[in-house]
Amino acid sequence: MNKSIPFNKPYLTGKETYYINDAVNTGKISGNGKYTKKCQTFFEDKYGFKKCLLTTSCTDALEMAAILINLKEGDEVIMPSYTFVSTANAFILRGAKIVFVDSKKDHPGMDEDAIEKLITDKTKAIVPVHYAGVSCDMDKIMDLAETHRLFVIEDAAQAIDSYYVGKDGIQRALGSIGHLSAFSFHETKNIISGEGGMLAINDSQFEARAEIIWEKGTNRSSFFRGEVAKYEWVDLGSSFLPSEIIASFLWAQLENLNDIQNKRKAIWTTYSLKLNQWASNNNIKLPSIPEYATNNAHMFYLTFDNNFNRTKAIEFLKSNNILAVFHYISLHTSSFYKSKHDGRKLLQSDRYTNTLLRLPMYYELSDVEIDRIINSLKEYKV
Amino acid sequence: MNKSIPFNKPYLTGKETYYINDAVNTGKISGNGKYTKKCQTFFEDKYGFKKCLLTTSCTDALEMAAILINLKEGDEVIMPSYTFVSTANAFILRGAKIVFVDSKKDHPGMDEDAIEKLITDKTKAIVPVHYAGVSCDMDKIMDLAETHRLFVIEDAAQAIDSYYVGKDGIQRALGSIGHLSAFSFHETKNIISGEGGMLAINDSQFEARAEIIWEKGTNRSSFFRGEVAKYEWVDLGSSFLPSEIIASFLWAQLENLNDIQNKRKAIWTTYSLKLNQWASNNNIKLPSIPEYATNNAHMFYLTFDNNFNRTKAIEFLKSNNILAVFHYISLHTSSFYKSKHDGRKLLQSDRYTNTLLRLPMYYELSDVEIDRIINSLKEYKV
Repeated sequence: MNKSIPFNKPYLTGKETYYINDAVNTGKISGNGKYTKKCQTFFEDKYGFKKCLLTTSCTDALEMAAILINLKEGDEVIMPSYTFVSTANAFILRGAKIVFVDSKKDHPGMDEDAIEKLITDKTKAIVPVHYAGVSCDMDKIMDLAETHRLFVIEDAAQAIDSYYVGKDGIQRALGSIGHLSAFSFHETKNIISGEGGMLAINDSQFEARAEIIWEKGTNRSSFFRGEVAKYEWVDLGSSFLPSEIIASFLWAQLENLNDIQNKRKAIWTTYSLKLNQWASNNNIKLPSIPEYATNNAHMFYLTFDNNFNRTKAIEFLKSNNILAVFHYISLHTSSFYKSKHDGRKLLQSDRYTNTLLRLPMYYELSDVEIDRIINSLKEYKV
Repeated sequence: MNKSIPFNKPYLTGKETYYINDAVNTGKISGNGKYTKKCQTFFEDKYGFKKCLLTTSCTDALEMAAILINLKEGDEVIMPSYTFVSTANAFILRGAKIVFVDSKKDHPGMDEDAIEKLITDKTKAIVPVHYAGVSCDMDKIMDLAETHRLFVIEDAAQAIDSYYVGKDGIQRALGSIGHLSAFSFHETKNIISGEGGMLAINDSQFEARAEIIWEKGTNRSSFFRGEVAKYEWVDLGSSFLPSEIIASFLWAQLENLNDIQNKRKAIWTTYSLKLNQWASNNNIKLPSIPEYATNNAHMFYLTFDNNFNRTKAIEFLKSNNILAVFHYISLHTSSFYKSKHDGRKLLQSDRYTNTLLRLPMYYELSDVEIDRIINSLKEYKV
């Protein structure tokens, strides 16, 4: 039997434990220390986010966003149904009603043209999810938001180091366009820290309060900058900041971001080139990247013509000791939310639920292994 | 000038980075892996908690508790005013109204005899905070909770390895008595992981749902145990679980729990014996430990007769390069909550706000340093 190829393998650059040791030995291991600041500054400088705050998860960054926009019971938030549960939970925790949009025919991301008719006087925010790190059409979304005075919170969990090219021809980093954005550094992402995330704040009206909410509702950061004489409870908040142990791990990843991205893009391109003909012969679709989007090689996925064929493919690959996996289950069909959903059919979302398959994609995937995956797929008969 | 004595210094047992390396090298660095399970089992076995779940902070454990008891807008939660902001924020995030109780004359913990008259038909929970790791009178609180059908959520942030001796003569670990309990492993605590916490579940009605809420509202844990065929969104939830990097650090601490506790208790006893006469001569009170409580040596504090004398003492110690610090500011007087508070005066809480002083207390505090602190205090003239 061939050696097993996992779906994901967290990549270590080699300096993670070196920086953790440094953090631990300096004696500052709670949050908001040297490495937290280094990481935040790195992201602000490289991607043009106005202000960054590391969080313990992308979920927590979304929860901060929901608090920041003063979301209240009964407010409505528009987002795709084909997404991770946290996209919705973060807003439901503040009492919001989730209004789900279908995916596009050619991409699992939300159908921007289906948003406007869902906007009511209760709508407070739109949450585009950049599926597979591929941008939604942000001009369309930002225009809608401006017209209807809504907030845009980018769920950029998968979207580090990816870009959107606007109508104006300017290329902007994903996460720098919406009023607020959330990133993930979970071990399944391009850049990792085990569990971890970040809130990017682009609308400066949120800057001061974000820092307060992050520090458990206190003005502790202002206090340390000497702006107030004592620090005290001034707002809602939680413990959103990660330990320096996590931030120092993340720093080792950031030092190698270019190398990691180049390697992943090479793997993605190999898949794409070598599977192209086979896919077209077998009625299978490869990922499509719109003209306005770049590809950060977060994910390589196939879309089958039906669930039966996808299941067969998963089983065939498994029999070759290769782990390929499906992805989200439409949130509007879940046990938790189906009775709360307004009943609209979301056919594309359900189609991706049933037919999308993700191939192994990680830094250490060797050329030999990639060829084994590709050859296995080619042996698979629809 | 004498070498500076900080207020706190996080203690490393020496094996933290060894276990972190092990976690990192096994390739599982997201949550709920080997070290998370080892830590949880350790706590369940040693302290008799029914079920434990590590969290990213004590704040997050309190937020889980608030979700678990189905707290709703307008529900009331009774807690001391002399506590950390997270005790209150966790419940306010669910829409609750906080009803503050005063502290006792002889201890900063909540006055158990002042609780009953604050109970209304909207009261849902009592949150005793075991200040300095010293137990509240849990028989009184559990009796009240039973009579009025309330939940008890122990804020055991400072209370690891401390006990309560009930009317029945049985000694129970703090955190094992209330329906739910929250612990902190922040770097200022006896046992640390930088940032970190734990929810202890003692009422089995909460066990299954706690695991779901912890796993972002999904039944992922049941799925991995083979109890359900697929995992999906079934409830509210968030990303409450810490990385294995954090859990492996914590494991190194737990292996040395007895050593850490013995050392801290020795320091505490030295303070107590050597400051006793001086304190009594200067109208300063040392910590009192009720008969029903043990002492986990989390904190050594003095209570002065007024704010002026405490301020003088802080300044005098600082001039000797010793950092001693005050503690909470009564939450009912905060910018955020004073307009929401019902106006009752909480005199003891305000007294501790103004007069309590914490002395340096950490594992590596040497006998020479302790003597220097004690001698400095003795030089200080009220």
